[in-house]
Amino acid sequence: MKTVVGAGVIALLVALIGTRFWIEFLVKRQYGQFVRSDGPQSHAVKRGTPTMGGVVIIVAVVLAYAISHLVTKAKPSASGLLLLGLMLGTGFLGFLDDWAKISKQRSLGLSPRAKLIGQTILGVSFGYLSFQFPDERGVTPASQYVSFLRDISWVKLPIILAIIWMTFLITAYSNAVNLTDGLDGLATGASGAVFAAYSLVCIWQRNQWCGAQIEVQQLCYEVRNPQDLAGISVALAGACFGFLWWNARPAKIFMGDTGSLALGAAMAGMAIFSRTELLLTIMGVLFVVETASSAIQVAYFKLTHGKRFFKMAPIHHHFELLGWDEITVVIRFWIVSGVAAAGAFGLFYAEWVVGQ
Amino acid sequence: MKTVVGAGVIALLVALIGTRFWIEFLVKRQYGQFVRSDGPQSHAVKRGTPTMGGVVIIVAVVLAYAISHLVTKAKPSASGLLLLGLMLGTGFLGFLDDWAKISKQRSLGLSPRAKLIGQTILGVSFGYLSFQFPDERGVTPASQYVSFLRDISWVKLPIILAIIWMTFLITAYSNAVNLTDGLDGLATGASGAVFAAYSLVCIWQRNQWCGAQIEVQQLCYEVRNPQDLAGISVALAGACFGFLWWNARPAKIFMGDTGSLALGAAMAGMAIFSRTELLLTIMGVLFVVETASSAIQVAYFKLTHGKRFFKMAPIHHHFELLGWDEITVVIRFWIVSGVAAAGAFGLFYAEWVVGQ
Repeated sequence: MKTVVGAGVIALLVALIGTRFWIEFLVKRQYGQFVRSDGPQSHAVKRGTPTMGGVVIIVAVVLAYAISHLVTKAKPSASGLLLLGLMLGTGFLGFLDDWAKISKQRSLGLSPRAKLIGQTILGVSFGYLSFQFPDERGVTPASQYVSFLRDISWVKLPIILAIIWMTFLITAYSNAVNLTDGLDGLATGASGAVFAAYSLVCIWQRNQWCGAQIEVQQLCYEVRNPQDLAGISVALAGACFGFLWWNARPAKIFMGDTGSLALGAAMAGMAIFSRTELLLTIMGVLFVVETASSAIQVAYFKLTHGKRFFKMAPIHHHFELLGWDEITVVIRFWIVSGVAAAGAFGLFYAEWVVGQ
Repeated sequence: MKTVVGAGVIALLVALIGTRFWIEFLVKRQYGQFVRSDGPQSHAVKRGTPTMGGVVIIVAVVLAYAISHLVTKAKPSASGLLLLGLMLGTGFLGFLDDWAKISKQRSLGLSPRAKLIGQTILGVSFGYLSFQFPDERGVTPASQYVSFLRDISWVKLPIILAIIWMTFLITAYSNAVNLTDGLDGLATGASGAVFAAYSLVCIWQRNQWCGAQIEVQQLCYEVRNPQDLAGISVALAGACFGFLWWNARPAKIFMGDTGSLALGAAMAGMAIFSRTELLLTIMGVLFVVETASSAIQVAYFKLTHGKRFFKMAPIHHHFELLGWDEITVVIRFWIVSGVAAAGAFGLFYAEWVVGQ
C-alpha cells in the first residue's frame, strides 16, 4: 500500500513541477504546436502553444515506479515492466510524430500508415510478451479470454487471435485518446478519471487476489501482480492531474501525440492485464464516443455523397459549433467521463458483492 | 449494493434534468442572484443569474433515498433519516436567506446572528438525536469519541461536549462551503469530490462492518447503517455532478445558501456518522483553506491596522487578482480537491491494510 500511495504522490509532484520547467524549456526553443487546419476557426489562436507535454507524464510515471520500488525494496514485476514498456514505446512513436510536425513546421506529422505500422509492431510485441513470464501459479500477465468484469469463461481465443485482439485494443484506444485531445484539458481529465477508476479496480483485485490467502476463494481475481498494476494506475492518475494543472484552459502546453498515444495504450494495457477489457468501453466511454462520432461522420459523408451527420467531428467540435463555450464542452464531457468511470467501478464491485 | 447504485443514478438524473426546468421557472419569475458588492469587479456581470439551485440538489437526494428504498424494500435507518433531516433543516435555513436576498433585492440576506442561531439549533438537535436510536448492538448514529480514521480511543468527550463539537463541525463546514461558493462550479465540484470519497469510505465500512459476519473482526468498523450512509453519499455526489452540468462556467444557476449550507452540513454529518471527523479536514481541505484565508485576512487587517494579507479573501479571489482566469482558479482548485479527497481515502484504506 505504501508503494501505491508513494507512486501516486511522486507522479503527481513530478508532473506538476516538471511541466512548469518543460514549458519554459520548450518556449525558449520555440517548439510550438501547429494546430490542425481543419478545426474551428476560434482555435487558430492556439498556434504556438508548446506541445509534447506527454514527455513529462511518461517520465513522471516511470520515476514514480522506480523510486517507489527502490524505497520499499519491492521487486519490479513482469506486468509492471511490460506496461511501462508499452507506454514508453507508444510514447516514443508519438514523439516521432510530434517531432516531425515541429521540424516540418506543419500540423501533419508521421503518415497515418507509418503510425499504424508502429502501433501494430508495438501491440503485437506487447501481446506476445504478455503470454510469457508465468508466475508461481502459472498466471501470465494477459489471458486468452476476452474479459468484462473478469475473464469471460466461454470466450477463449486462440493465442494468435488473442494477440490480434490486444493489438486492436491498444491501437484503438491510442487513436481514440489522440482524437479526443482537441480541447484544452479534455483528454487529460478524462484519462485521469479512467486511471483513478483503475486504481480502485486494481486495489480491489489486490485485496481479493487469488494469489493471497483470502476468505472467499471462488470470487478471487486471477491476475498477475495487482499490486504493481495499482501502483502504475495511481501514478498515471497522479501524472494526469498534475499535468492538467497546466493543460487546463487556457492551456500552457498540450500533451501531443507523445501523451495521447501513451495514455491510450496504457489504458488498454491496464484493461488487458486486469481482465476488464470490455469494461473499458464504459470507463472510457468518452473516447469510444469520440471515435464513433468521427467514424459516423466519414461513413455518412460517403453514403450521402457529401452530407454531414455532425456539424463537425469529432463530437466535441460539434457542440462548440452548437454554441457551447469550449470550457462548457470540456467540463460537461469531464462530468460524463467521471460518472462513467465511477459507474464502471460500481459495476465491477457490485459483481463481487452480488456473487458473495 | 443495488440501493447504493440506484440512489446515485436517481440523484444524478433528477439533478441533471430537474435543474434545467428549475432554471426556466426561476428565470420566468425573475428570481436573480444579487452578487456580493465586495467581490472583484469582473463579477458584476453575474447579476441576474438565478440562485437557489440547492433546492434541486436536496430534492434529488431525498427522492433518490426514498425511491431506492421503496424499490428494494429496504427499511430507512435512523442514521439515514437524521442525515437527511439535517440536510433539509440547513437547506431550509439557507432558503430563508436566499429568499430574503431576493425579496429585499440586495446581496445581504439573514443577519449573521440569525443564521448562527439557526445553525446552532439545528446542530444541537442533530447532536442530541444522534445519541438516541441504538441498534441491536447498542451502537448509536454518533459516538462520543473524536474521530480521525476511526474513533480515537483516548479522546472520549462527555455527551454535552460531544454535542458542542458536532454543532461546531456542522456550523463550520456549512459556512465554509458557503464561503467557497464564489466562483462558477467551484463549491459544487469540490463537494462532489468529498462525497465521492465518502461513498468509498462508507462502502468499505459496509464491507468491513462489525455488524456483519466478517473475517478480521478486530479491524471492523463500529458504525450504524453504513449501507444507508453509502447510499446517501453516492446520491449527494450524483446530485452535485448533475447540478454541476448547469453550474459550471458560464453558470446558468447558483446553488445559493440553500445549497451551500445543506452540502456543508451533510459533509459534517457524514464525517460524524462514519467516525472520520478529522479526516474531513483533508478530504475537504479546500473548504478549510478558504475559511482560514478569510480568518487570516480579517485578523491581519486588525493587527496591522489596515494591511491586507491576501489581495482579497477568500483565497479564490486572491488568485483572480493575481491574474489567473476565473476558470483556471476553479479547475486548479478542483484538482487540489480531487487529489486531497483521493489521498484522504487512501489514508483511510491504508490504515486498514496496514492493521491487517
